[in-house]
Amino acid sequence: MSKKWISVLLLLQVCLAGCGNGGKVLVWPCDMSHWLNLKTVLEELTERGHEVTVLVATTSFLIDYTKTSKLNFEVIHMSTDREEATNALNNFLDVVANVMPYLSYWQSAVKLQEFISQQTEIMKEQCEHVIYNQTIMKKLKETNYNVMVIDPVVPCGKPTTLCETMGKAEIWLIRTYWDFEFPRPYLPNFEFVGGLHCKPAKPLPKEMEEFVQSSGEHGVVVFSLGSMVKNLTEEKANLIASALAQIPQKVLWRYKGVKPATLGANTRLYDWIPQNDLLGHPKTKAFITHGGTNGLYEAIYHGVPMVGLPMFADQPDNIAHMTAKGAAVDLNMNTMTSADLFNALKTVINDPYYKENAMRLSRIHHDQPVKPLDRAVFWIEFVMRHKGAKHLRPAAHDLTWFQYHSLDVIGFLLACVATAILLVTKCCLFSWQKFGRTGKKKKRD
Amino acid sequence: MSKKWISVLLLLQVCLAGCGNGGKVLVWPCDMSHWLNLKTVLEELTERGHEVTVLVATTSFLIDYTKTSKLNFEVIHMSTDREEATNALNNFLDVVANVMPYLSYWQSAVKLQEFISQQTEIMKEQCEHVIYNQTIMKKLKETNYNVMVIDPVVPCGKPTTLCETMGKAEIWLIRTYWDFEFPRPYLPNFEFVGGLHCKPAKPLPKEMEEFVQSSGEHGVVVFSLGSMVKNLTEEKANLIASALAQIPQKVLWRYKGVKPATLGANTRLYDWIPQNDLLGHPKTKAFITHGGTNGLYEAIYHGVPMVGLPMFADQPDNIAHMTAKGAAVDLNMNTMTSADLFNALKTVINDPYYKENAMRLSRIHHDQPVKPLDRAVFWIEFVMRHKGAKHLRPAAHDLTWFQYHSLDVIGFLLACVATAILLVTKCCLFSWQKFGRTGKKKKRD
Repeated sequence: MSKKWISVLLLLQVCLAGCGNGGKVLVWPCDMSHWLNLKTVLEELTERGHEVTVLVATTSFLIDYTKTSKLNFEVIHMSTDREEATNALNNFLDVVANVMPYLSYWQSAVKLQEFISQQTEIMKEQCEHVIYNQTIMKKLKETNYNVMVIDPVVPCGKPTTLCETMGKAEIWLIRTYWDFEFPRPYLPNFEFVGGLHCKPAKPLPKEMEEFVQSSGEHGVVVFSLGSMVKNLTEEKANLIASALAQIPQKVLWRYKGVKPATLGANTRLYDWIPQNDLLGHPKTKAFITHGGTNGLYEAIYHGVPMVGLPMFADQPDNIAHMTAKGAAVDLNMNTMTSADLFNALKTVINDPYYKENAMRLSRIHHDQPVKPLDRAVFWIEFVMRHKGAKHLRPAAHDLTWFQYHSLDVIGFLLACVATAILLVTKCCLFSWQKFGRTGKKKKRD
Repeated sequence: MSKKWISVLLLLQVCLAGCGNGGKVLVWPCDMSHWLNLKTVLEELTERGHEVTVLVATTSFLIDYTKTSKLNFEVIHMSTDREEATNALNNFLDVVANVMPYLSYWQSAVKLQEFISQQTEIMKEQCEHVIYNQTIMKKLKETNYNVMVIDPVVPCGKPTTLCETMGKAEIWLIRTYWDFEFPRPYLPNFEFVGGLHCKPAKPLPKEMEEFVQSSGEHGVVVFSLGSMVKNLTEEKANLIASALAQIPQKVLWRYKGVKPATLGANTRLYDWIPQNDLLGHPKTKAFITHGGTNGLYEAIYHGVPMVGLPMFADQPDNIAHMTAKGAAVDLNMNTMTSADLFNALKTVINDPYYKENAMRLSRIHHDQPVKPLDRAVFWIEFVMRHKGAKHLRPAAHDLTWFQYHSLDVIGFLLACVATAILLVTKCCLFSWQKFGRTGKKKKRD
């Protein structure tokens, strides 16, 4: 799965009836961190009076269709259950965090491929359970949805290419913005809505606030490897804990594993942390992160410098962006020593360069004509109001690859030139044979 | 002058001091229709508390520095006066409208080249009167401006290329939007603010409103060739007037020339018309236009279908855009007959296709998250607040042409391959000479 596939939400226009506010939205989401972004958009849509229906499989990890919600859920019953799917994911993440570091490049690739094949099978089944379920399909068709919001990470609809998929969407909502991206050309139907889930920090729970305040002028460090990775090997956990024990800051570490023996008195473990509220706390000095887009955006939003411990997927690339923009130090989870982590933390906390850059990115993020969430909602509603956004769609999508590169035109012109050369040569040869020889003959006579 | 040069306003960041609201803005404008757009932006900036200084030559046509205004003017005294420059322009426009139609392509090109050379001389003088005037330069430097707004049509700063100029600006404000443009890739520091000067129609003068109302259900046609072209040949004027006389609509024609003999009772001539108010009038059925960007945007804003009579510069291209989008019929001013104009008017007025498309473009224009004028002002203020917009500037601007096309990388790789082939060949030859011959020798022995 390439970065592009991971960083986009796709809107397909299926508007069949006139619609303004109070439209009907059908959603084919992607699970995990993508869902956290999309959920924010969908909740805003329900706030604005739209009726939102989410297609959700019984195996989903984070899409909790059992809770009361303003969203409607159309449940897809799968052959495996949630627990089984969750176990498969946890096994994979355990392999990524604890086994892969000791494997060769090729062994790692094989492990990754195994997981992707397994997930693809689940997604395929999920897809078939909708497409071939006449009851669901009839119900969906009869509802006359005004717009469909799709996350294209989920492959459904015969094999396709990225280019073909891109041409089908009316609007692409990209999960980043120019605080994170390197400037590059893009198409008019792309909206960069990175950080749409970010909001000002709320007060911390009493016990946590007391711990944070006890840090004094040194402040705190927030540490999370995301909602997915919960365990590390004892060795890795001890390596990290001993580095954290050396810094004068207090540390809040989201970690569900066994308490490491080297854990310092300054470090507290939590099953879960209010990450956004902690990153927005004035005492927070640094964020140790695996480099998921959502966590990075919370750090950008609140202007917190980072230490990156990327593991897989787009995480190494995300951290590379933050490093290039001077807001993070990158570490290799597999090869780092306790001293590396200690030094990286000391650097991002004490060298003003990192804080200044994090604050600069934060200022860029906050200084937009329209907030990312409002832009995302605006363009979904635009597609509903106008039954599409054809005026933003480049005609290049309708060309074949050889038309796109003007090979047909070049071919035609080359054929013309070749024909002309051939004709001229033939004429010359003919003239030479006819008149040249006659001349010679005459001369000889 | 290419289309790109014509359709951009350039912002150069020269922020030397901290600034928020109440910044100092220096403006190097372009005259004529470009000034009408820029003036709207500058007046909004003064409304928001900024101090705006415009560099203006005594030869300028539309930039009236003698009137009381909220804008400050730094007057550049030229060797020719305004009257002389205006005469030169009028002579050229007279040639374009009345002489060029009877000239060959090459003769027309020579006439155009003559005018461009003349204008370039004036612009060069204007430039020198600023750059080499130590009093003006000292004053400008001492004022510590926060931002400079430049229209890059005016060539000043040594010979340059379009690419070089593009790389120098922090933000480009483009005078169009996707209601007018064909979708294509663009860079993050481009803002498409077309139609920023448009506003709802105000009531018409009493006499004009009575004339418009007298049209009954047929409505009216608005006709203008822009603020520059004032006269046509008697022949051309009669050809047009006789076509207009045949339609059931009343016609308001902005025309300063002699009243054509064939003028119908349904047509009235005006020295000047409140074009935006007329195009926004519910009785207006069509707009006959030369295809200037400002007029087109007023028609798009109010959803009025068009008949295009383009003459020079970007006008033919502008009308081609409107024709492709189904909101206009294009005519050739030089070759059209009276019947052509009559048929074109009948088509855009009676075929609902044109009105529907004009209304569609209008809906697209009005349905933006932020209005074009507010976006233009936002990004000028952004450059002031952040002392630039470097995060939107592609690094490609700093590459040479061979680096941009990766020719250095390709060259290096080819050199590596060539060296490898050379080495392998040499080794093979050497081995063959050494061992091949020895083998043969041995065999022979």
